[in-house]
Amino acid sequence: KVREVAAGLENPDLADVIEELAPEQRVELIEALGADFDFEVLTEVDEKVRDQISEALPNDVLAKAVTELDSDDAAYLLESLEADDRQEILDQLPQSDRAALERNLLYPGETAGRLMQADFVAVPPFWTVGQVIDFARDTEDLPETFSEIFVVDPGFHLLGSVNISRLLRTKRDVPINTIMEADRHMILATADQEQVARQFERYGLMAVPVVDSDERLVGVVTVDDVVEVIEQEADEDAKLLAGVGDERLSDSVREIAPPRFLWLLVNVLFAMVSASIIDLFGGSIEQMVALAVLMPIIASMGGNAGTQTMTVTVRALATKELSDMNVRRVALREVTVALINGVLFACLLSALAILWFGGAGLGVVIAIAIMINLLVAAVAGMLIPLGLQRLGFDPAVASTVFVTSLTDVVGFFAFLGLATFWLL
Amino acid sequence: KVREVAAGLENPDLADVIEELAPEQRVELIEALGADFDFEVLTEVDEKVRDQISEALPNDVLAKAVTELDSDDAAYLLESLEADDRQEILDQLPQSDRAALERNLLYPGETAGRLMQADFVAVPPFWTVGQVIDFARDTEDLPETFSEIFVVDPGFHLLGSVNISRLLRTKRDVPINTIMEADRHMILATADQEQVARQFERYGLMAVPVVDSDERLVGVVTVDDVVEVIEQEADEDAKLLAGVGDERLSDSVREIAPPRFLWLLVNVLFAMVSASIIDLFGGSIEQMVALAVLMPIIASMGGNAGTQTMTVTVRALATKELSDMNVRRVALREVTVALINGVLFACLLSALAILWFGGAGLGVVIAIAIMINLLVAAVAGMLIPLGLQRLGFDPAVASTVFVTSLTDVVGFFAFLGLATFWLL
Ligand SMILES: [Mg+2]
Ligand SMILES: [Mg+2]
Ligand SMILES: [Mg+2]
Ligand SMILES: [Mg+2]
Ligand SMILES: [Mg+2]
Ligand SMILES: [Mg+2]
Ligand SMILES: [Mg+2]
Ligand SMILES: [Mg+2]
Ligand SMILES: [Mg+2]
Ligand SMILES: [Mg+2]
Ligand SMILES: [Mg+2]
Ligand SMILES: [Mg+2]
Ligand SMILES: [Mg+2]
Repeated sequence: KVREVAAGLENPDLADVIEELAPEQRVELIEALGADFDFEVLTEVDEKVRDQISEALPNDVLAKAVTELDSDDAAYLLESLEADDRQEILDQLPQSDRAALERNLLYPGETAGRLMQADFVAVPPFWTVGQVIDFARDTEDLPETFSEIFVVDPGFHLLGSVNISRLLRTKRDVPINTIMEADRHMILATADQEQVARQFERYGLMAVPVVDSDERLVGVVTVDDVVEVIEQEADEDAKLLAGVGDERLSDSVREIAPPRFLWLLVNVLFAMVSASIIDLFGGSIEQMVALAVLMPIIASMGGNAGTQTMTVTVRALATKELSDMNVRRVALREVTVALINGVLFACLLSALAILWFGGAGLGVVIAIAIMINLLVAAVAGMLIPLGLQRLGFDPAVASTVFVTSLTDVVGFFAFLGLATFWLL
Repeated sequence: KVREVAAGLENPDLADVIEELAPEQRVELIEALGADFDFEVLTEVDEKVRDQISEALPNDVLAKAVTELDSDDAAYLLESLEADDRQEILDQLPQSDRAALERNLLYPGETAGRLMQADFVAVPPFWTVGQVIDFARDTEDLPETFSEIFVVDPGFHLLGSVNISRLLRTKRDVPINTIMEADRHMILATADQEQVARQFERYGLMAVPVVDSDERLVGVVTVDDVVEVIEQEADEDAKLLAGVGDERLSDSVREIAPPRFLWLLVNVLFAMVSASIIDLFGGSIEQMVALAVLMPIIASMGGNAGTQTMTVTVRALATKELSDMNVRRVALREVTVALINGVLFACLLSALAILWFGGAGLGVVIAIAIMINLLVAAVAGMLIPLGLQRLGFDPAVASTVFVTSLTDVVGFFAFLGLATFWLL
């Protein structure tokens, strides 16, 4: 009965079920399913669940699993094992599986070499379409699905590739090298996965050959794995901006509290700078409490306007839309928007200040402070992410705290400073 | 010479070049390239550039372009035309192209029906593999590349599909219905593109059949187009959170200034609530300026802690990781983290306040205010996005302003209120 239910589920759904089971039940379920269990499910479960299961399963079961998986999934699974178990399993594998897997494991995480599938279909240039089709029909150990046939020389240097829908539509006696396309896209195995994802997205790619430093074909990156990378990277950026690091929803309190603490601490340190500015003008506030009342409005305007410009900049850097070619136009646009909105809010808020507290002086001071603050917000909102990128950091990291802290400090200084020298 | 340079460029790169040209030069370039110009480039250029070019090109050139494009790209191009031009072009199309295109145009933007390609390869169940291959070889008007063959009954109801790598590996005399797989994934043409993207990502899909309300096959969504949707949606969420709406980097000042103004106005209105709270305790600040000095620290702590929880919640809702099953565990985790970090920062900041201004009372007040503020931040950071979602809004919309404004108000009220009643 369990077998029936499980057979009706797709891998990600079965993975969700397994995550909800008690640790012993997970292993029981996998053993009950026997040959019906697709070990790809283990690539879908949460890290901790995977560790628990692969620790509990005997090594020969894992070795069998590894031969059934695509090499990228197998590498992912093997990596979570302890070194001695990993070696024992590698030793049990047939030569061809081991070679493919070791090629994946050669490259560090988050590179094309790890993301790629090291199994692929490669043929010599002098074969005909018919020979390729017969080879595909007669060879057992091919990837389960593939979309490109690669044409290579005897040294495995890539000569070109043929999409299999093209192959299917060509007569049997045509030589493969007359229908192959020279590959415009090739990825170095050491390339970062984020760069790979950007290339897939820009050029609408489905599968791209991966080569080593000698330009030998070592694998193929397929778009389904790239989709996961894109999602991961979007997640990473959103979380970096908010200061929640590399958190997962399944992480425990112990795991997430310390990085969040650190981020809040950085924020407090910056807030202390703002506090010091206010302290500097403590006497003015004592004389005119309206200044303290209006401070959150100054802070809110600067912080939000800065976040707008910064978000546009960070996203445009992430999608590579912002380049030397258009950076001046975008900067000019941001400053112009800041000027326009600055004038509008200067009028609005000086009217508010006059109505609330009376006295035109306070109105003029808040108007000037708002103008200064929005201009600084626009400039900082662009320069801070650009500067972080130039220094080799991810522009998403901490941009928010830098921008909002800077606008707080500048805003308070302008507002309290002007008020002190003009009004008191 | 222009022809040579352009031929060396891929579509997205040629699109970038065209964007940089003057309007007249764009049309000249396209006319100079003649038949070498791939009109798919027009789907890659910016909206305004596309409008300018399709306005300038004669309708018969556009009609020819439309027959060459995949139906999804053709629909995208046609949609940007004026109604009379669109009709004139549709009238010039061969029947089969027009039918496919009209099927795309039937569905609104951002649905599976618009995203799909209405050209596909469909065969009857009684054909053999050999017949299918011969059909593919002999039929001119098939999509340029395809990865699935669909098996349909005479009424075009979907029976199953065969990945073409499977087809390629099967002997010619095998009937297609013995190797087809019943499609576990099917998309209704009216489904939202975001939901489609989520399904592709979860199940690692490459191409999914699209059916109408009568379960008739009308098209196929391919993963390359889904990749663009995923990127768009990530962009949309990041921008919604920052209050920069549906901006593009190429938008002008006129286009981006008004929505940004509105967002800042909403923020100012919320900031006025915080200002009113401070005003309420104006007398206390007059007596004890230290309160005004410490206010930005309270505001910064609450805003940042709330943003952390909110970002985690918004992302988990976007990726459908947060469900009724785990929402209580996540809520408990967030509150626990808030308690732990609350105690730590309460100690830290009360020490700071005592060192800075002397007097243990102020230390106790800030400690309690921080604890309250971080707890409210955690609760609001979860409840606000969940509530927005329940009300049918995108949880990313405006969550930031609600969370940070609420923590400001609560933080100021707790801090100034406690100080007023205990210290003064
Ligand atoms: Mg899961
Ligand atoms: Mg194998
Ligand atoms: Mg693209
Ligand atoms: Mg894979
Ligand atoms: Mg990144
Ligand atoms: Mg990364
Ligand atoms: Mg472009
Ligand atoms: Mg056609
Ligand atoms: Mg396309
Ligand atoms: Mg997946
Ligand atoms: Mg398409
Ligand atoms: Mg969305
Ligand atoms: Mg959407």
